[in-house]
Amino acid sequence: MSEPKLRAKELDAADGLAAQRAEFVLDEGDGGSGGEAVYLDGNSLGALPVAVPGRVEDVVRRQWGELRIRSWTEEGWWTAPERIGDRIAPLVGAAAGQIVVGDSTSVNVFKAVVGAVRLARSADGAAGPARDEIVVDATTFPTDGYIAESAARMTGCTLRPVPPSEIPDALGDRTAAVLLNHVDYRTGRLHDLPALTAAVHAAGAYVVWDLCHSAGALPVGLDEHGVDLAVGCTYKYLNGGPGAPAYLYVRAELQDRFDSPLPGWNSHAEPFGMRPEYAPAPGALRGRVGTPDILSMLALEAALDVWDGVTVEAVRAKSLALTDFFLECVEAYVPEGRVACLTPRPHGERGSQIALRCPDAGDVMKRLIERGVVGDFRHPDVLRFGFTPLYVGFADTERAARVLAEVLAETGV
Amino acid sequence: MSEPKLRAKELDAADGLAAQRAEFVLDEGDGGSGGEAVYLDGNSLGALPVAVPGRVEDVVRRQWGELRIRSWTEEGWWTAPERIGDRIAPLVGAAAGQIVVGDSTSVNVFKAVVGAVRLARSADGAAGPARDEIVVDATTFPTDGYIAESAARMTGCTLRPVPPSEIPDALGDRTAAVLLNHVDYRTGRLHDLPALTAAVHAAGAYVVWDLCHSAGALPVGLDEHGVDLAVGCTYKYLNGGPGAPAYLYVRAELQDRFDSPLPGWNSHAEPFGMRPEYAPAPGALRGRVGTPDILSMLALEAALDVWDGVTVEAVRAKSLALTDFFLECVEAYVPEGRVACLTPRPHGERGSQIALRCPDAGDVMKRLIERGVVGDFRHPDVLRFGFTPLYVGFADTERAARVLAEVLAETGV
Repeated sequence: MSEPKLRAKELDAADGLAAQRAEFVLDEGDGGSGGEAVYLDGNSLGALPVAVPGRVEDVVRRQWGELRIRSWTEEGWWTAPERIGDRIAPLVGAAAGQIVVGDSTSVNVFKAVVGAVRLARSADGAAGPARDEIVVDATTFPTDGYIAESAARMTGCTLRPVPPSEIPDALGDRTAAVLLNHVDYRTGRLHDLPALTAAVHAAGAYVVWDLCHSAGALPVGLDEHGVDLAVGCTYKYLNGGPGAPAYLYVRAELQDRFDSPLPGWNSHAEPFGMRPEYAPAPGALRGRVGTPDILSMLALEAALDVWDGVTVEAVRAKSLALTDFFLECVEAYVPEGRVACLTPRPHGERGSQIALRCPDAGDVMKRLIERGVVGDFRHPDVLRFGFTPLYVGFADTERAARVLAEVLAETGV
Repeated sequence: MSEPKLRAKELDAADGLAAQRAEFVLDEGDGGSGGEAVYLDGNSLGALPVAVPGRVEDVVRRQWGELRIRSWTEEGWWTAPERIGDRIAPLVGAAAGQIVVGDSTSVNVFKAVVGAVRLARSADGAAGPARDEIVVDATTFPTDGYIAESAARMTGCTLRPVPPSEIPDALGDRTAAVLLNHVDYRTGRLHDLPALTAAVHAAGAYVVWDLCHSAGALPVGLDEHGVDLAVGCTYKYLNGGPGAPAYLYVRAELQDRFDSPLPGWNSHAEPFGMRPEYAPAPGALRGRVGTPDILSMLALEAALDVWDGVTVEAVRAKSLALTDFFLECVEAYVPEGRVACLTPRPHGERGSQIALRCPDAGDVMKRLIERGVVGDFRHPDVLRFGFTPLYVGFADTERAARVLAEVLAETGV
């Protein structure tokens, strides 16, 4: 057995999270050459938790099919957004009552960024500076930038894209809100949430963190670091299913002043009063909009069961061990210079994915998938490998690097 | 057999849509006294179509569980919003390519109303009148009013609530957009879509119709009547399931100028180009926002199979026959003056529900439900009975009226 293979065996044997793999539906023996497929795309779509199909069947057949509208109260449909929000809360370091689930990430970015601008303006009052700038990470996932641009246009602000490293210097009296990604979707770089949050606050502005690529993969510490608002999706490291509803965090002390641009009937203080005047509900409920999407939402709720007895700290430790080991294997197997790692080496700057740049990345990923190593390709030249510690092991990781080396040896440039 | 019971028997025997009932999961023998529950709340949550559970199971177990990310292309997940939009299109009188499914009704109202204001302003140009008013039906379902207020605030307009009958007189040079309900959620009144649309256009403004209580119950004729924008939910007469995604219609000729306030990456001309600059997709796709909610969306797609071979005209004819017959039975069974009908008698002004006012409506509805007649209660004094012609029959209707009379006789005021 090769050195990396032996190491993988030892690491798997010592892995305290190895048993969690049984909570997921994963391939057995259908991954082409070499047995099981290795699924390294949980940072795009998390694998199916085994608890989900039965739960969804119950929701469809019994709750909808038999109880019908009674389920809104008897099965807790109506309160699902805040109940499931409270299930996500400990995973991102938030106390209960600050997260609601619902809508897409993009829609939540809109609520959060407009909300942040309004918070900044209401905090300063008439005598304060004219805050008319929204700062956004220049390397952000595109939808955040597009939505922030719309939020800027609709609040009389200008949008200023700034490379993340230059953000502290870009902040000032004009800054109303700052929208940042905790982990960069492309490179896997982890940004310094505590320091950047403090810098935004020092400028008198409000920060919105996008947790899509960090929640469920590493500790976030929303409460601890005084984050104002945050959004995230639930279909990556939270395994909620394709297009599962996203969530919105509004820090408890800001909720009374949170002024949503999407004040739907579900965020009304008295939704069934059917009153013509809007009066926002107290607390996190203020972030709700329309009728919650029950099928997807309750699938997510079942998916969150995999976190019972698991700490984010343990997940983070394994995630770093997996990505360290993957880089070790890539170095051992792949000729130097054939790929360049975009993901930072220091643990403090690394998310839960490894991004490798190579000129023929599109073709390479196609061949990898054919051989049962599933990552994804990001235009124009990036191979992304996501490491989801609840179901990826060290032997999977060694195999992925080995197959990558084989494919790279065949293709050449 | 009583006269209404005999009539019900004849009407059911002659009902060309009677066979459609087998497409739905309905109660048998568990409705308390008197056998099957009569479900007259399909205007709140449509019954479960039998095709849905199997389809959802396939989506969860095979598409998500086995194929995972490959389903985005191989199973058509990515194109679901426009594909399912095209399935809804004939039900609302729209040619293909004008409807996308996704987000809640409230979120779509926001897109549509802001979009309408921008259309009005771009049509007039700088030399045109300063259109700064959004007119909304004063009796609207509350969320429409709340969201229209937000749209007004964010586009520099004022919101003007106007009783529907006075809307033509309220329109003018200042009117940018008008948001109207096709059928009033409370009273069941059907508004005159062709005439009101023409009146809005005569004022140089743009109209948004909310079809929540009409789509799937009666012909809408969006294309025929030149409607600009429309939104609707899919969980009432379209039976898509609790909180199923809503839809947005943008008339083909307006799509190039439709300027969404929620320009997410899914509405980008090249979503996987990951470009920092937003460039809207052509056509209906421009109404998309974030990642589509696949579980709920594909449940809806399966639910739409019940429309195969069914025309909206046939549904409308049966709907009117059902509501006529219900009123006939109520008159036969219920002492005069005990309830007052809020729903207009003329067919041209009636949706697919009957709303009866009585002072003790909350208590009455509770007792009705206990006896297997399921309608709903709307604060403070309205009993709502929704008639869904695909699965409600005339014997159901007679029984509902009969049990209502029994309950009313017991309770008294």
